[in-house]
Amino acid sequence: MSSSPSSAATVLLADQVLTMDQQGTIHAPGAVTIEGAIIRAVGPPPERPSNRIIDLRGSVLLPGLVNAHTHTPMWIFRGLTEDVPRGEWLNGRLLPLERRLDADDLRRGALAGCLELLQNGVTTIADRYGHMDAVATAVEASGLRAVVGHSLFDRTAESDLAHAERLIDRLGTDPGRSRVWAGLAPHATDTCGPNLLRRVRRLADRTGARVFIHLAQSEAEVATVVARGAPGCASYLDAFGLLAPDVVAAHAIYLSHEEADLVGRRGTAVAHCPSSNAKLEGRVAPIARMRRAGAVVGLGTDAACCNNGMDLFAEMKVAGLLNKVGTADPAEFPTLDILRAATSEAARALGIDHLVGTLEPGKRADVIAVRTRGAHLMPWHDAVANLVYAARGSDVVATYVDGQPLLREGQPVDLDAERILADAAQVARGLADARA
Amino acid sequence: MSSSPSSAATVLLADQVLTMDQQGTIHAPGAVTIEGAIIRAVGPPPERPSNRIIDLRGSVLLPGLVNAHTHTPMWIFRGLTEDVPRGEWLNGRLLPLERRLDADDLRRGALAGCLELLQNGVTTIADRYGHMDAVATAVEASGLRAVVGHSLFDRTAESDLAHAERLIDRLGTDPGRSRVWAGLAPHATDTCGPNLLRRVRRLADRTGARVFIHLAQSEAEVATVVARGAPGCASYLDAFGLLAPDVVAAHAIYLSHEEADLVGRRGTAVAHCPSSNAKLEGRVAPIARMRRAGAVVGLGTDAACCNNGMDLFAEMKVAGLLNKVGTADPAEFPTLDILRAATSEAARALGIDHLVGTLEPGKRADVIAVRTRGAHLMPWHDAVANLVYAARGSDVVATYVDGQPLLREGQPVDLDAERILADAAQVARGLADARA
Repeated sequence: MSSSPSSAATVLLADQVLTMDQQGTIHAPGAVTIEGAIIRAVGPPPERPSNRIIDLRGSVLLPGLVNAHTHTPMWIFRGLTEDVPRGEWLNGRLLPLERRLDADDLRRGALAGCLELLQNGVTTIADRYGHMDAVATAVEASGLRAVVGHSLFDRTAESDLAHAERLIDRLGTDPGRSRVWAGLAPHATDTCGPNLLRRVRRLADRTGARVFIHLAQSEAEVATVVARGAPGCASYLDAFGLLAPDVVAAHAIYLSHEEADLVGRRGTAVAHCPSSNAKLEGRVAPIARMRRAGAVVGLGTDAACCNNGMDLFAEMKVAGLLNKVGTADPAEFPTLDILRAATSEAARALGIDHLVGTLEPGKRADVIAVRTRGAHLMPWHDAVANLVYAARGSDVVATYVDGQPLLREGQPVDLDAERILADAAQVARGLADARA
Repeated sequence: MSSSPSSAATVLLADQVLTMDQQGTIHAPGAVTIEGAIIRAVGPPPERPSNRIIDLRGSVLLPGLVNAHTHTPMWIFRGLTEDVPRGEWLNGRLLPLERRLDADDLRRGALAGCLELLQNGVTTIADRYGHMDAVATAVEASGLRAVVGHSLFDRTAESDLAHAERLIDRLGTDPGRSRVWAGLAPHATDTCGPNLLRRVRRLADRTGARVFIHLAQSEAEVATVVARGAPGCASYLDAFGLLAPDVVAAHAIYLSHEEADLVGRRGTAVAHCPSSNAKLEGRVAPIARMRRAGAVVGLGTDAACCNNGMDLFAEMKVAGLLNKVGTADPAEFPTLDILRAATSEAARALGIDHLVGTLEPGKRADVIAVRTRGAHLMPWHDAVANLVYAARGSDVVATYVDGQPLLREGQPVDLDAERILADAAQVARGLADARA
């Protein structure tokens, strides 16, 4: 162990510890020592453990997963938007559903969504939607670490910006100071014109808020931007200083080689949502190219109705398969890179890699334990391959955020799952009745 | 209820019954009445149930899943063949591993593989590998319904054919007469020359055995067949009468439009293994085209080390996503078609749709119950979409084959899971030690 923890420390003991540090260090067996919210030590099990021991043998420890793009309230819509022809999903199918829900409906949906994420081993999310004041309340209650952004549109720019500023006043923009903080979330390059994007850039510079935007997620979006005179969505964004290391661009599907290279060259963060891109667009984003050019890529599940779940384990598998197909190269996106995209690189994408994303002394104690025993997980020849391609969210047995246990034996410690699900299911039933 | 079951009947009661019949009938709530090995009635819950009731409310009933292509003994290799450059997997990575295992090793691996399949809601498999006499013993012990075939190669043709004939003598070829029966399993179009393929066709005609073959799974296979003077793997096979409704071709990746159409026109059954094709080749098979041309398509997981699991729920999701990407059409392979490819159409592919694949009176009682409650499964707006895109193998709570309970509350009824896994893990450890 690299330090001598005090008697107030807790030692998590497991078959393996995947630190996800730069060297990819694995300790087997291993232990993570936590004091308060902070990791004090990571290494082999202590020889004379004088501290409180949590015995998690039969599992591996790794950093809590970081979901770089999601919309928790859309939990309500799971299964309502299937097999939609290209171009019809957003306006034809989603908007009519969204119009039926109010702020409290979204709060209830978001809490159920957070519960789903928590049970799947996710400890940090980048969440964005409407009514984010209400949604943020749910996210705070869930115990997850989160950056939350209120969606900004041209057509409601003044009230949206006011909402976003209120959120910044309430939560701040510093992930080091509060577990839930605010970002700025312009909707997309077609729904946000030059004026709004300039105001976003200025507000981001003034407040230090990170910017989250949908980029090149549909052909219609590209057509709109091209009609405005830009070569594509990426260069359009770049004109406003919004291809940059403090910007997280979700999807990034419809990009020319030049545009993909530009995204990378600017050091933009990309939230890669392979299931959603395949399901709604039948496409694979040019992730390999953007990564080579310098983009920081984190994985995201997108919303429950685009995927149809928020399980980053399933998403890692899909990311591997789709990127191999997208490049026609079975060696593309090797397992360790995929696991990084759901942990350390996703943390970098969200600008919180000084806090989370690896298991290293001094970082926040966001830790999950994943079982290693069971017919679908054995043999355990290769921990990384098994986590990426064989494990599923239901294999997460324990979750800690800021050193606090949120999940124990797969069950939430503080949240009343039954009540949360009944509450959100009631909203969903109302929606189904209104459609019938 | 469509008949009056006797007092010996058992009634499975659930929130919904997805019959997967031609009309896609769903009963909600619903019941399936079983007498012995046979389904007697399917419909709404009986009004005055005088029979034994199994209360499976909180779940849906559907036909047990049918895995159209797998190699259960390769459970041992999970995680040992990751991110391999195209063309190197089979000879460069797999064969050196296979050489280290004997018949009893394979039997032990197969039993662990069958356990994994069972826990994932699979009730029928098409299994093929070497040492199939030993493997068949494991499959029989598992309780699964299965067709098993011993792989036939040119270089060992005489002993392979003798082994295959022994298997036919022992198990027969009639799925109506025994739960585990024998098929004929020539390896692939490159590893089987004209003489062997002619003998296979004759043996199939004489014994009634169904034929299982790998088709166009690698570029090297295509090159070999082209060097023999055929335009491609499909027409090569066709020359021996082996594109036919009694032939199940696995993979079918590297086919020209004409070859894909030929596969369909002959009414060939195709075992579609999307995860394996993406992972090992970076490709999507031309399934949409083959289906349009008349092919019967069932889903398969392939082996644990190609996927890296044998969860047909995960495979359904991957099948949807990859086929949408393969055709660049998000409306392609709609949810009900995908669920059929894992149930009724997979049964057709294996020639057992008169026995299983739907829940209809007179068929064998191969039934699974999948939970509907939980953060990742709610809301339950659309049963089919939730099963295809949100459920996972771990959501299977009960499994019946021939009316016999094999899984109860997610746990095997008769199999000693701990012993089976320990036994197979020991083989895996030996393999790892030998490589180290």
